[in-house]
Amino acid sequence: MRKAILIIQCPDQKGIVAAVSDFLYHRGGNILEVDQYVDHEAKRFFMRACWELDSFALDRDQILSEFEEKVAGRFEMSFTLHFNDPKIRMAIFVSKLSHCLFDILARHHSGQLEVDIPLVISNHEDIRGVVEAFGIPYFHIPVSKDSKKKAEQRQLELMREHEIDFVVLARYMQIISPEFIQHFPNRIINIHHSFLPAFVGAKPYHAAFERGVKIIGATAHYVTEELDAGPIIEQEVARVRHHNSISELVSIGQDVEKVVLSRAIKSHLDRKVMVFRNRTIIFY
Amino acid sequence: MRKAILIIQCPDQKGIVAAVSDFLYHRGGNILEVDQYVDHEAKRFFMRACWELDSFALDRDQILSEFEEKVAGRFEMSFTLHFNDPKIRMAIFVSKLSHCLFDILARHHSGQLEVDIPLVISNHEDIRGVVEAFGIPYFHIPVSKDSKKKAEQRQLELMREHEIDFVVLARYMQIISPEFIQHFPNRIINIHHSFLPAFVGAKPYHAAFERGVKIIGATAHYVTEELDAGPIIEQEVARVRHHNSISELVSIGQDVEKVVLSRAIKSHLDRKVMVFRNRTIIFY
Amino acid sequence: MRKAILIIQCPDQKGIVAAVSDFLYHRGGNILEVDQYVDHEAKRFFMRACWELDSFALDRDQILSEFEEKVAGRFEMSFTLHFNDPKIRMAIFVSKLSHCLFDILARHHSGQLEVDIPLVISNHEDIRGVVEAFGIPYFHIPVSKDSKKKAEQRQLELMREHEIDFVVLARYMQIISPEFIQHFPNRIINIHHSFLPAFVGAKPYHAAFERGVKIIGATAHYVTEELDAGPIIEQEVARVRHHNSISELVSIGQDVEKVVLSRAIKSHLDRKVMVFRNRTIIFY
Amino acid sequence: MRKAILIIQCPDQKGIVAAVSDFLYHRGGNILEVDQYVDHEAKRFFMRACWELDSFALDRDQILSEFEEKVAGRFEMSFTLHFNDPKIRMAIFVSKLSHCLFDILARHHSGQLEVDIPLVISNHEDIRGVVEAFGIPYFHIPVSKDSKKKAEQRQLELMREHEIDFVVLARYMQIISPEFIQHFPNRIINIHHSFLPAFVGAKPYHAAFERGVKIIGATAHYVTEELDAGPIIEQEVARVRHHNSISELVSIGQDVEKVVLSRAIKSHLDRKVMVFRNRTIIFY
Repeated sequence: MRKAILIIQCPDQKGIVAAVSDFLYHRGGNILEVDQYVDHEAKRFFMRACWELDSFALDRDQILSEFEEKVAGRFEMSFTLHFNDPKIRMAIFVSKLSHCLFDILARHHSGQLEVDIPLVISNHEDIRGVVEAFGIPYFHIPVSKDSKKKAEQRQLELMREHEIDFVVLARYMQIISPEFIQHFPNRIINIHHSFLPAFVGAKPYHAAFERGVKIIGATAHYVTEELDAGPIIEQEVARVRHHNSISELVSIGQDVEKVVLSRAIKSHLDRKVMVFRNRTIIFY
Repeated sequence: MRKAILIIQCPDQKGIVAAVSDFLYHRGGNILEVDQYVDHEAKRFFMRACWELDSFALDRDQILSEFEEKVAGRFEMSFTLHFNDPKIRMAIFVSKLSHCLFDILARHHSGQLEVDIPLVISNHEDIRGVVEAFGIPYFHIPVSKDSKKKAEQRQLELMREHEIDFVVLARYMQIISPEFIQHFPNRIINIHHSFLPAFVGAKPYHAAFERGVKIIGATAHYVTEELDAGPIIEQEVARVRHHNSISELVSIGQDVEKVVLSRAIKSHLDRKVMVFRNRTIIFY
Repeated sequence: MRKAILIIQCPDQKGIVAAVSDFLYHRGGNILEVDQYVDHEAKRFFMRACWELDSFALDRDQILSEFEEKVAGRFEMSFTLHFNDPKIRMAIFVSKLSHCLFDILARHHSGQLEVDIPLVISNHEDIRGVVEAFGIPYFHIPVSKDSKKKAEQRQLELMREHEIDFVVLARYMQIISPEFIQHFPNRIINIHHSFLPAFVGAKPYHAAFERGVKIIGATAHYVTEELDAGPIIEQEVARVRHHNSISELVSIGQDVEKVVLSRAIKSHLDRKVMVFRNRTIIFY
Repeated sequence: MRKAILIIQCPDQKGIVAAVSDFLYHRGGNILEVDQYVDHEAKRFFMRACWELDSFALDRDQILSEFEEKVAGRFEMSFTLHFNDPKIRMAIFVSKLSHCLFDILARHHSGQLEVDIPLVISNHEDIRGVVEAFGIPYFHIPVSKDSKKKAEQRQLELMREHEIDFVVLARYMQIISPEFIQHFPNRIINIHHSFLPAFVGAKPYHAAFERGVKIIGATAHYVTEELDAGPIIEQEVARVRHHNSISELVSIGQDVEKVVLSRAIKSHLDRKVMVFRNRTIIFY
């Protein structure tokens, strides 16, 4: 089924739901999902509407301008329009740890993730074998202090060549430059291996062990310039006990990382994530 | 703030959201919350809309008939209309175990539950003291095989006298008769001390121990004629281990029961629970 | 059943388990529970053994010296000996929020907590009524900047008068002085309303809302001089979503606080908590 | 490090811990882990002890007989002795759904599971590619009503040829015969895609949907003759809501299945699972 998805935010006021649903109804749109949220503090309105395209009166390229004219202008909306085809094109960046990558590939292989994965980029050679067994091209781009800038140029070239829409850092242990981030605003998802904002930065499992916490976690967030401070998409936790060594924390935590990252990817692919003031609204 | 809440279900079709939101918008309704759900399998539409009364063009007693005429008839809707005042009047039934009762009373005392509690009914005398310390009348109605029918008559009288809207069985260890249930369809909430449908009936913690489960749970559901088979409102679980005795399961489980029951009560009071084919739709 | 509990820590070495279990066996001790843990990193051994007193060859006051002579000296053990009677005497400090206090009182009332509660101390009058309904003396000791020192003197007097063994801060919103803490080393439990180490200090629910976390939590820890930095005993979390307001976070979080605090109290009362390098070992 | 693991159960009585720890201590055994549990109801004692072999006075083949003579006979113990090398040899059976299989292979590949996987057996061809990419032989043994007996003969031959110690049914959709089970008592782990004992048998996600549960789960258990009724090793759950379709339940549930199965495998490989009266004791 071909679907359109409209993502809207604007100042809160009366009549928005009526205006949007009228717009779709009078053009034959069969609404499949509609969600709205009002941030009463900030007086801001958020909406996601998904409808069938087949019975809809407008062609794809007419929707934007007509919606702008009839509805969006009146309410000072900022909005985006998406379709469920063609599929989103997702690049995966990874270093040496393969658990998140394999988890994504296995989900993709089983049809659980509606996405194209044109390439995997790594700063190491280690995981090439299995990635290629899944039929996905593997690019090894080493990164050192000196080569960092050049490596990122090469990465950006590959993004362009493969028409990448969004990027997943599946335990990629290099910091992404502000320039790279600007190409993909709120379109780079990172998995951080702690329950943010606790344990920002490197070696969070060591820090968790030292502090003696009884629960560890993982956080998927959009990458912004400030390290580990971007809008949080998903978090999950697992219980640990005094007898768990750091390497056991790592192992328990990896199960959490996989689940958190895959849920965040799923929400992003379904266009269910909106960002406002460094917080996410997630419809589901 | 005075609010109205409209709860709707009807066959799914185009234009429902538009019709309802138009209706409210054109009468000056400021929508605070709107949620909808479509059961695509059953082709059934569900909606909950909540709006401010103060700026609304219609008086309370006009809303029903005008909505019937302008919207509901057209879509074959069954719907109910509620207001956030006066408060719902809730009776609590309890036997000897006080943990759920105390939990509700403490929440009520702290202002967390927007409800009036005109009375507590028990088939035992045990808990009178603390209930009365919370300022709530306590009625002791003993129940034996022979007196069961008469006891229920007395309970129903008290329900009428105190204009009770809905009933919470906070570990009330007597079976409610079909006659009593008919007075409160989907308005009696029971807490069952297992993760239904596992361990229906008496002594679920014993049964859980025997089966060697690693997780126990509790279930809040509306009471129907079939024992422990009514629509599930809320469930929660807790992890247990081989060394936990049955009495430890009871103790761990009681914490789960309290949380589950209070969440179910909250959802019910907020008019966020709808029932369809023995399943609940819960907006939140 | 009268029980003795021995809590041991010492440098790790061969033969400790054999020595302790031999000591108990040859004096007729029927071991009910024995747990041990080795911190291989720190090369440190921890043990908890619990046995029946009735069949035991030694009188209570002989155990310490004989265990010292026969076992503890040889292994450089630091150890403590406890009995399950008389009951531990616990003071509760509280400010205005009553949810944790009521939860403890309800558990105590139902026999779930094996403890004596000789008094509740509050810097406010608000909760006197229900506390006294539970039959527990309520002491109102106001605290202001100027009166803080004097208030603490009064508190310490009451601790002595009532022979208090340990103190629970059930949402007591005053900072405890180092002097007070010295009287109760690892014997003051505080409930902090965040998932530490995230959101140390005041207004953690506000901070959690601002950061846009998807999970909130609570932490029970022993009070040390550094604020919210003492050894963590128990943590638990709850999921939240974008639409939850700060006051909903507070309400969801209070359920977590209650459970976390009561579990920590239970572990402490059962002598199942050991502290080493600001971390807890918890046998259960 | 070479380790020995002793697993003991016997009638409860005084002196067992002393006898076992003495036995190990006097032969130079450095105990790494020791856990014990008493089922006070059944008056039965359970113990697991793990110690370093390098400093131990006995050769591997002397331990059994000497322990039998000096300790086990006296206490009517039934016991087994294990070593951490060579690795356990595990066969995986799978049908068409690959999520559990891939999860195990990825863990094995990353070194998280200390086990040899000599082969994967499937009644379908579908997953051959990726299994072989992981370097593991794949045997396709179709099963029909008529060929079932013969297929099982072939499976047993492969078990013998590859010296298989234990078997994992990673969503293998065929019933295992009593004869096959007899070859691997408490050494076949199945993952059932429901929170047992709820929803025994086929299509548990459909049944969960129909009943309207708010939480779904998965259960890993040893296979016994009675379907889905063997000793439970591990369970985990996930929250679902009214809007989740059956296929979403499947997808959410698969994440739970993977985690549950891998934890059960880990506990089994570490020799931390004991079975008594259809319940498991799990030391960790």
